Amino acid sequence: MPEIREDPLSGRLSLVAPERGRRPHDFRITPESVETSPCPFCPGNEHLAPPEVLRLEGEAGEPWSVRVVPNKFAALEPGNPELPWSGFLEPLPGVGRHEVLIETPEHEKALAELKPSQVRRVLEAFCRRKEAFRAEGWCYALFFKNHGARAGASRRHSHSQLLALPFLPPLLRREFVRTEEFRREKGRCLFCEILEREGQGPRKILETENFLAVAAFAPRQPLETWIFWKPHGRPFDSLTEKEQEEFAEILLTLLQALNRTLPDLPYNFFLHLEPLRGPFPEDFHWHLELVPALTRVAGFEWGAEAYIVPLAPEEAAVWLKRA
Amino acid sequence: MPEIREDPLSGRLSLVAPERGRRPHDFRITPESVETSPCPFCPGNEHLAPPEVLRLEGEAGEPWSVRVVPNKFAALEPGNPELPWSGFLEPLPGVGRHEVLIETPEHEKALAELKPSQVRRVLEAFCRRKEAFRAEGWCYALFFKNHGARAGASRRHSHSQLLALPFLPPLLRREFVRTEEFRREKGRCLFCEILEREGQGPRKILETENFLAVAAFAPRQPLETWIFWKPHGRPFDSLTEKEQEEFAEILLTLLQALNRTLPDLPYNFFLHLEPLRGPFPEDFHWHLELVPALTRVAGFEWGAEAYIVPLAPEEAAVWLKRA
Repeated sequence: MPEIREDPLSGRLSLVAPERGRRPHDFRITPESVETSPCPFCPGNEHLAPPEVLRLEGEAGEPWSVRVVPNKFAALEPGNPELPWSGFLEPLPGVGRHEVLIETPEHEKALAELKPSQVRRVLEAFCRRKEAFRAEGWCYALFFKNHGARAGASRRHSHSQLLALPFLPPLLRREFVRTEEFRREKGRCLFCEILEREGQGPRKILETENFLAVAAFAPRQPLETWIFWKPHGRPFDSLTEKEQEEFAEILLTLLQALNRTLPDLPYNFFLHLEPLRGPFPEDFHWHLELVPALTRVAGFEWGAEAYIVPLAPEEAAVWLKRA
Repeated sequence: MPEIREDPLSGRLSLVAPERGRRPHDFRITPESVETSPCPFCPGNEHLAPPEVLRLEGEAGEPWSVRVVPNKFAALEPGNPELPWSGFLEPLPGVGRHEVLIETPEHEKALAELKPSQVRRVLEAFCRRKEAFRAEGWCYALFFKNHGARAGASRRHSHSQLLALPFLPPLLRREFVRTEEFRREKGRCLFCEILEREGQGPRKILETENFLAVAAFAPRQPLETWIFWKPHGRPFDSLTEKEQEEFAEILLTLLQALNRTLPDLPYNFFLHLEPLRGPFPEDFHWHLELVPALTRVAGFEWGAEAYIVPLAPEEAAVWLKRA
């Protein structure tokens, strides 16, 4: 029997309709196109990318460890971060920052193949840029990754993207509104409720001292998985170095499990964090959402903002725990 | 300068970032894969599809004009349309209907190549099924089309899909909430305001007595276009045969303009209508949204529910008016 599921954070709906007998290898992956031009993310080719805004030094023998450069095809341009918000059928200036984070000097290494210490450096680079965005007055720092051509990555060399936004993304805004509603109605933190229930349930994949990784209850794609930060009331900004390491490790474990389940799985992930401005929201736990690129967004998804997903999250959790 | 745009209906944001010098032929289209198995939508192969639920007779010499059959891979199953809505981290039964509307007996004809009278019959078939869905007690009838492999169509033979849903789609729910908010704040119909402004603006593409076609102000994809029903307070259900013909004609004109702009453009469209149950919403104008399948949904779109679109709607309107 297919199922309808409502994501408690966004109000988004999923129709979970598993096809009988579906197995990981039933999802075909389009191979990546081969690049012919020299890679601007490789050591020695730094001049092919815009001048770097951040460089973390590498270990002995490495040219560098992580670099951040402005995106050559930026969706936003520098400008005044204070938007005059009255854009009813009127465009507002598209100001912000759009940067590329080169995650490793090694061309052929995927994020999932990096050492935890290297992933920690990726996080550190993001944190430093985020602080720069905050100092400049931006509203939100979006950190996301596209892995694989089907997931929108135009280059093979492992990288992620950073945006400084002059607005709070609609999806985040909805999450904040819904945590407020839940507090009013139930007198409780929505995230704490989710963590308590998912921590004992069939969608749990991995748990560490501070993190819980689960198959999303109402996913947009098969194998969609989320990593939640468990402590209540502590923003992303407050993470210690040790906690960043713990996060790097659970992320790597999850990526490796996904890769063993579906080799070279194309995916997107992004962080949902507290805004750069204003007080920390009472009931917010930062988290990472990982959305594989397996099924297409088509008429139903666009028209309803509900998603038809051919794999039950509980089955996805079984696959990933086994991997 | 790129732009940020807020869709007044959904609150969705777009970053409109036109690349300099972008032209229609810069968007590459992946050709459709060729089918080898016999087409279950062709006359003579009716036995290959599930038994029809509706057939409209054709003109002399035609086996039939339009057929509706249950979807072989239905996302929903028949059942009780009254959902016990308390699905907090609990799945609800995935009940509903999921049907395929075969738009023509001719295998090679795209919707854009049909006669207006044939498109009118497609609408008539949808209306008849919608009335059947209402009689069965469903909440919403979603009519959508996927055209082209990139837009999720698995078969070339022209068809659309119908779903009887036991819930109001989240996107519709948001539209209703926002029209109510607009009424409270501005004392006016949000759609009437949009129609008045877009009817004189640079995004207008076509206008007839009862319809306005515009390039969407805050699109999710390049060349996204919407057709609005102009009369205030008249539901989709109240359309006369003549008004259905007028709609068929403006839809065909728009599809042909899109095809001349980008030959064989893959696209999705869907209708946003009043719900099947309850009173007609005070300030709702039904409309069609057409979303081409040109750019990918990736980390940014998933993470923010904002869309990076490389073509300004005003430019899209110029292309489409010229075509």
